[in-house]
Amino acid sequence: MAEATSAPIKVIYDTDPGIDDAMALLFLEYAPSIDLVGITTVLGNASIDTTTRNALYMKQLFNLAAPVARGAGRPLAVPMVEEPHYIHGHNGLGDVPIPETLSVKEHELPAHRFIIDMVRKHPHEIVIVAVGRMTNLALALREDPGIAELVKEVVIMGGAFGFYGHSGNVTPVAEANIIGDPHAADEMFAAKWPVVAVGLDVTQECVMTTAYMEQLRDKGGKAGQFCWDISRFYEDFYRRATGIDGIFVHDSSAVAYLIDPSLFTTRSGPIKVVTEGIAIGQTIQKSALRSFPPSAWDGLPDQKICTAVDGQRFLDLYFDTIVKGAAERA
Amino acid sequence: MAEATSAPIKVIYDTDPGIDDAMALLFLEYAPSIDLVGITTVLGNASIDTTTRNALYMKQLFNLAAPVARGAGRPLAVPMVEEPHYIHGHNGLGDVPIPETLSVKEHELPAHRFIIDMVRKHPHEIVIVAVGRMTNLALALREDPGIAELVKEVVIMGGAFGFYGHSGNVTPVAEANIIGDPHAADEMFAAKWPVVAVGLDVTQECVMTTAYMEQLRDKGGKAGQFCWDISRFYEDFYRRATGIDGIFVHDSSAVAYLIDPSLFTTRSGPIKVVTEGIAIGQTIQKSALRSFPPSAWDGLPDQKICTAVDGQRFLDLYFDTIVKGAAERA
Ligand SMILES: [Ca+2]
Ligand SMILES: [Ca+2]
Repeated sequence: MAEATSAPIKVIYDTDPGIDDAMALLFLEYAPSIDLVGITTVLGNASIDTTTRNALYMKQLFNLAAPVARGAGRPLAVPMVEEPHYIHGHNGLGDVPIPETLSVKEHELPAHRFIIDMVRKHPHEIVIVAVGRMTNLALALREDPGIAELVKEVVIMGGAFGFYGHSGNVTPVAEANIIGDPHAADEMFAAKWPVVAVGLDVTQECVMTTAYMEQLRDKGGKAGQFCWDISRFYEDFYRRATGIDGIFVHDSSAVAYLIDPSLFTTRSGPIKVVTEGIAIGQTIQKSALRSFPPSAWDGLPDQKICTAVDGQRFLDLYFDTIVKGAAERA
Repeated sequence: MAEATSAPIKVIYDTDPGIDDAMALLFLEYAPSIDLVGITTVLGNASIDTTTRNALYMKQLFNLAAPVARGAGRPLAVPMVEEPHYIHGHNGLGDVPIPETLSVKEHELPAHRFIIDMVRKHPHEIVIVAVGRMTNLALALREDPGIAELVKEVVIMGGAFGFYGHSGNVTPVAEANIIGDPHAADEMFAAKWPVVAVGLDVTQECVMTTAYMEQLRDKGGKAGQFCWDISRFYEDFYRRATGIDGIFVHDSSAVAYLIDPSLFTTRSGPIKVVTEGIAIGQTIQKSALRSFPPSAWDGLPDQKICTAVDGQRFLDLYFDTIVKGAAERA
């Protein structure tokens, strides 16, 4: 990967760790082109207590400078559902041992106020990488709508746009981060900040095989070993549930977009989220190139979705970033 | 095209002519492997009066043996919308001259009773090719649910399943035949007859260029000339609205599936239609190969959708069928 030639991008990472969240957090921390200025947590892969604890654990373990601000513990409007223990383990990190007490503390602000505060302090500089439910982003927008025009970019892992026969992972059309809080996602897509949605269409085109993970473990220092340890449970889930020989690492694709957007093909157009009925949680983009009769998409800002990815280059970028970052910290 | 080696397939053609409907009707009539035993009409591309008159006009003009039974003039539950005069012309056939009075008459039964009657008379022999709204099929099922298990196959032109970036043509997710009566379509997909949905994913992969249509006009006898005449208005619409150099002939793709299914790639799984909200009219198939938590798709029969087509072979099949059929009738 080329060294960053300009100042690193200030990133707030909104996350529900989660195994792929944890792997993407290390990717952000080790990428020289990124300056991780905050971590905000949200429920999803586990409860808000668990995802916040996991973020704090990683802050302690990897000596992260970024503060951790606790976010939403429930969706805006849809009911709570059981957490996916069968994917991320009971502790959200594949049931690796985690100490009972941690020496690092949460930030004093709740996540959505932390976001507002940082955006107001650094207008036009902050990129939000959101890889859980969009609840914190929606709460921030509700409290201070003016931040939308002060955010540099929002890159999310979320949605499924039906490309190449890819479907949702919770229903035939809905992806977990979006169906987990469809109202929040709809508000997030409607805001006048530039959004890039990195959905299942591309994240499912990138598989980290067992062999890849072994290499990462052997060459990636403490981070590589950690990725290996937390992903054993997750890999077992994927092998049983999908038959793929390895793991999807959804959230890291959003980080990859930020580091090197040339990995992806995108399509522009306004995006709506279905908030009721059998298609609840579906993300629907109206291509900016198509015309339709008057519809719910009219008047919304064009946002981008990723429709294709160079999977091998993505895998190389992740690997090289972790290995190089680990070597520098060894 | 190979000659049919077994008895021709008995087909009821449920249609809303409509320009592409008219072209598909000639395809059915001229295909040696098909025995067209009835034409049932439905509103859609024009009012029920107009689509029925157009079917009768074609019966007279091409001396079709099949009777014409008038069908539904309104959808089951959704409101009537304005007819697409800008696509099919005010008379539904591209505004070619049509005589004021016709010498042929309608069948005495309404469409849905005609369907029931024919299916009961020819159990396990009838294929329904439905290329308009599914209203007549739903009415037949409601009146006599037992017909479902007596129908050989239902091949529809309808739906959009999001393959290869194809979207709906009325909204970003809804195709016209389905959104025109989403409740009827949902009932049709739920019935225990084998359905094949030939949707926009494949019909939009087949374009008849102006050069193709000129050849069809010059070599296809009276049928070829008729296809040329009715499609001038339609081609003009496509050029203005989509920029494609030619026309989509949606309904003929359903006929092609019946004549030679090897032209298509299919995927199996239950299909639901969205009947409310912004995604109304969307067709959603749960792939039979995927598992999800309990959902609206559980307990429904697997149906097929077409996910890919050999467009050139389709174009050749249509051309050869019309030219050969016209020569035999000259
Ligand atoms: Ca996540
Ligand atoms: Ca039609």
